[in-house]
Amino acid sequence: MRRLHVLSFVMLSSFSYTSFAQGCNSSLLPSWKDGKSKTAIVDFVKQATNKESDKFVAVEDRIAVFDNDGTLWSEKPYYFQLVFAFDQIKAMATDHPEWKTQEPFKFVLEDDLKSVFAGGEKSLLEIVKATHSGMTVEEYQKAVGQWLQAAKDKRFNKAYTALTYKPMKEMLAYLQDNDFKTYIVSGGGVDFMRVWAPQAYNIPQEQIIGSALKYKYSYNDGKPTVVKLGEILTIDDKAGKVENIQHIIGKKPILAVGNSDGDQAMMQWATSQPHSMAMIVHHTDEAREWKYDRKSDVGHLDSALDEANKRDNWHLIDMKNEWCEIY
Amino acid sequence: MRRLHVLSFVMLSSFSYTSFAQGCNSSLLPSWKDGKSKTAIVDFVKQATNKESDKFVAVEDRIAVFDNDGTLWSEKPYYFQLVFAFDQIKAMATDHPEWKTQEPFKFVLEDDLKSVFAGGEKSLLEIVKATHSGMTVEEYQKAVGQWLQAAKDKRFNKAYTALTYKPMKEMLAYLQDNDFKTYIVSGGGVDFMRVWAPQAYNIPQEQIIGSALKYKYSYNDGKPTVVKLGEILTIDDKAGKVENIQHIIGKKPILAVGNSDGDQAMMQWATSQPHSMAMIVHHTDEAREWKYDRKSDVGHLDSALDEANKRDNWHLIDMKNEWCEIY
Repeated sequence: MRRLHVLSFVMLSSFSYTSFAQGCNSSLLPSWKDGKSKTAIVDFVKQATNKESDKFVAVEDRIAVFDNDGTLWSEKPYYFQLVFAFDQIKAMATDHPEWKTQEPFKFVLEDDLKSVFAGGEKSLLEIVKATHSGMTVEEYQKAVGQWLQAAKDKRFNKAYTALTYKPMKEMLAYLQDNDFKTYIVSGGGVDFMRVWAPQAYNIPQEQIIGSALKYKYSYNDGKPTVVKLGEILTIDDKAGKVENIQHIIGKKPILAVGNSDGDQAMMQWATSQPHSMAMIVHHTDEAREWKYDRKSDVGHLDSALDEANKRDNWHLIDMKNEWCEIY
Repeated sequence: MRRLHVLSFVMLSSFSYTSFAQGCNSSLLPSWKDGKSKTAIVDFVKQATNKESDKFVAVEDRIAVFDNDGTLWSEKPYYFQLVFAFDQIKAMATDHPEWKTQEPFKFVLEDDLKSVFAGGEKSLLEIVKATHSGMTVEEYQKAVGQWLQAAKDKRFNKAYTALTYKPMKEMLAYLQDNDFKTYIVSGGGVDFMRVWAPQAYNIPQEQIIGSALKYKYSYNDGKPTVVKLGEILTIDDKAGKVENIQHIIGKKPILAVGNSDGDQAMMQWATSQPHSMAMIVHHTDEAREWKYDRKSDVGHLDSALDEANKRDNWHLIDMKNEWCEIY
């Protein structure tokens, strides 16, 4: 009996939490509790799409940009693309016996991630080059796809694509239904995201902007290939996000959503015009997801948090108190 | 009477030429004579959009890329963007007295274009830097817009945007009506094209890919700006076109249209898959436009012409014999 009681309690509690928690019974954005953030989103969209409103925005200017890591899916304990890179190093190690003694590869093989991260950007770049270049885009994306099918996040024991945020996917769909062109503008690799993000977020490959290595086109015996080189083409972070938005979209977005100081520049850029808005996913939920901001290396949110507190059209999304469900 | 006769003849001849010339009376693609190229376009679109066809292409894969200079508008006697740059040098000269004696600027001021071009890429790059950098994108585009309103092509005494090809605009519209996503992939500057191309071709700014200088984002006193730097970010020509298609679109186009060897790589890339097609605008009409191919510096068409003659799904568009009207 005791066991059944416990089970009933768990089921009821989970049932009530996801469906009947206060403000969690709406048909519009159902994973968002009624509250400040949901109101901000709905008001923004209603005004932008209402021809009678003085905040109406023409369809061609309804550009919305979203960071990915920590904004559309989780990013802890560290970026999922890095997990992929580390797993690839292990898979490739038999062909690279020299890695057993060579930093930073030996640290990866020994699961000594502290030492990997202690090596800073230089170490990470070496790992990225070893796992992300010297192959065609096609070959690389095949490897990403295979990894995604097998790999699981350790804490939640779920596929990484199952750690995309349900409320954010509802927000994307709501914007798309209202003729917004939704873009990802992420520090993550563009070729990495293009494998799975189109399906996860209903965002086509050509609306995904990210960091990238240089590409090299060759044509041999009637066979054209594009190979990923070991040199950086663009780092899509901070000012780089705005520069890539200018280069690739050529238009100022009217909505920018992020979760860290890396997104602050694109939020400033978007909200330097009328009828615009910025939102920050604030990681406040250590039970259901993670809790971090000013002191975290991954998803460091400090100066953008200060700016959000000062500006009327910058909104903080309180994950713990405003999201009925996370995943 | 004689004068009237001549006038009647001219009117009749022009009337007959544009409206009743053989094969020029169709409601579909009206500026295209019935013939090989028109048939190729219509067949291609009908198959790609017919779910019963084994050449059906899903909407999200209907990506079509077009070169601009010489493919969608004229490019002779030299690229119109260069005319803009030379005109800007002249307009800026009062603030730069040193240019009177400094190459290549002095050649521009003396209208000695032979000497400008003799300086090769290095000279042109200096002119581009002087006229295309050191200002915000907004300021630059304002200057382009003002120039376009005033400047006229010398041979035709028309605004440059009036020298866009009517048949190609019909082809773009036909593709767009059939859910193709049409892109410009041009060696011209992306910021230059974004000023006028969206209106001219019904192609939004975010579907325009071109050469670009680096951008620099700054945020001062609450005012964000993006400045154009004097360093090259990307040259969108030859292999660069494919590399930019990979970077920005992330998908292989099924249709690539160009007019020179600079477009050969992207035509090879597009047609390395089934259900694809390449087309080349062949400048064969010295009376109504220009006639050039293998021996021309601007719009040099040599090796791509050879390849087109060998490949079934590469089509030459004979401007003189297949276009009822040019502009």
